[in-house]
Amino acid sequence: MTDGPRDSDRHRITGFSNPTVKFLRSLRDKKHRRRAGKFLAEGLRLLTDALETGRVPEMLVMATERAPHPLLRTLEQEVIRAGGLVVETSDEILSKITGKSNPQAVAGVFAEFDTSLAAIDRHSADIWLVAQALRDPGNLGTMLRTGDAVGAGGLILLDDCTDPFAVEAVRASMGAIFTQRIARARWDEFLPWLRGDGEGGGQLVAASLRDAVPYRGAPYRAPCFVMVGNESQGLPEEYEAACDLRVTMPMRGRADSLNAAMAAAVLAYEVLDTLERA
Amino acid sequence: MTDGPRDSDRHRITGFSNPTVKFLRSLRDKKHRRRAGKFLAEGLRLLTDALETGRVPEMLVMATERAPHPLLRTLEQEVIRAGGLVVETSDEILSKITGKSNPQAVAGVFAEFDTSLAAIDRHSADIWLVAQALRDPGNLGTMLRTGDAVGAGGLILLDDCTDPFAVEAVRASMGAIFTQRIARARWDEFLPWLRGDGEGGGQLVAASLRDAVPYRGAPYRAPCFVMVGNESQGLPEEYEAACDLRVTMPMRGRADSLNAAMAAAVLAYEVLDTLERA
Repeated sequence: MTDGPRDSDRHRITGFSNPTVKFLRSLRDKKHRRRAGKFLAEGLRLLTDALETGRVPEMLVMATERAPHPLLRTLEQEVIRAGGLVVETSDEILSKITGKSNPQAVAGVFAEFDTSLAAIDRHSADIWLVAQALRDPGNLGTMLRTGDAVGAGGLILLDDCTDPFAVEAVRASMGAIFTQRIARARWDEFLPWLRGDGEGGGQLVAASLRDAVPYRGAPYRAPCFVMVGNESQGLPEEYEAACDLRVTMPMRGRADSLNAAMAAAVLAYEVLDTLERA
Repeated sequence: MTDGPRDSDRHRITGFSNPTVKFLRSLRDKKHRRRAGKFLAEGLRLLTDALETGRVPEMLVMATERAPHPLLRTLEQEVIRAGGLVVETSDEILSKITGKSNPQAVAGVFAEFDTSLAAIDRHSADIWLVAQALRDPGNLGTMLRTGDAVGAGGLILLDDCTDPFAVEAVRASMGAIFTQRIARARWDEFLPWLRGDGEGGGQLVAASLRDAVPYRGAPYRAPCFVMVGNESQGLPEEYEAACDLRVTMPMRGRADSLNAAMAAAVLAYEVLDTLERA
């Protein structure tokens, strides 16, 4: 039998005023998150996903009263092996940290990733998702999950988007936060980057009502960048105009648009089908 | 010039303890909502959508300090004409009512609709969405919006789903709460209803990993009922087994599923394309 984590490896925290508790709670706030360069992911499944993609939390926080679980044991071992901290605390304090009344019995603190465009190799995948001024962290996380499903390389966040490291975004991503590349850029950085690789760049595609072809059977080509706009404003006209391909999606009801994350999913699956048949 | 709404038609409320304020706030809670048979919709756009589909709020609540707007004036007129109540109050109280720190300057109270299966005419549309044990009101609202976009007839909620009249669901529906039919039923009511119209019933379709055909080019036929399962559990095996058609969607990443509302959108667009080409 191998040596498991020992009690002496665990730090027990009992007070709400403990500095570690304060630090962990502060990670629910964007400003503090950014300053610390850390983010929080909750739940054994998410943390196991992280581990499988080679991401070990710097700190692991567990309920003192927890059911034993082999995956949790593995997680704890890996954190200790990597020199990280394992913390035990009450359900009550864990609730305060995660902001959920029914917290999943474990949370981890991770270092934020490099989110510069330079960290993205566009030729590592055929599909990329792009979102402009996305407001809702749930939408952002769902787009990461959709990206994972279609085999996209990652998500490029243009202009002033909600924070991909927000607890709600991480949660909605269902682990895709650890598998999808994420970049943040302004439009005037993104466009030159997209055009400027000397190999024809990437194809920029958006749903549009202007001068567009049906999304079904449109000439998508890799690497294809599927762009959606802000939830209430849509894409700025200038952004649509800069696209290599504008496509229309059927709108049979009263509304003239889909939820941004929905539009991204329907388009991305269409692109996937086209590229796989090519 | 026609007579517009007069000051005497408006009831001004200034205190948090006013019974109307208490009533309005209580509509954020499912139990109170169901007891009252009323729900809350916010924002001029949503209320205008409602009006265009013939739904007049029983009560209209506006900020006393508001910018004049012709649509708001119309709305007010219609409420008064229908014998409804128009209430003016402070931004602060409006925030308390809507639970948002930045409330849209108007909210309306509507009577809940009939959500029995009997109220649904399956032959009034070619596509219907079905959700089982859906937990998240945002997902529910988004499914309504997707339903509107694909020209679906409505959304059937199976088993213990989140409340379609929750403020978050209404908001995410972007008006589709007023255009899509909504029914609530248990599985053992739904299935006999689906099979029992004597005209071959409807086609029940779900994404599945078992004994399934590719979702692309699958033999969808109207009326087609696209069913998705609970966000974390998926569909019960029995429900999948009862489907007329099980389809697989490509999953190119680490995860084996899409967000329920995403899966519904991608499938519904595929069904729409198939039926329109037929």
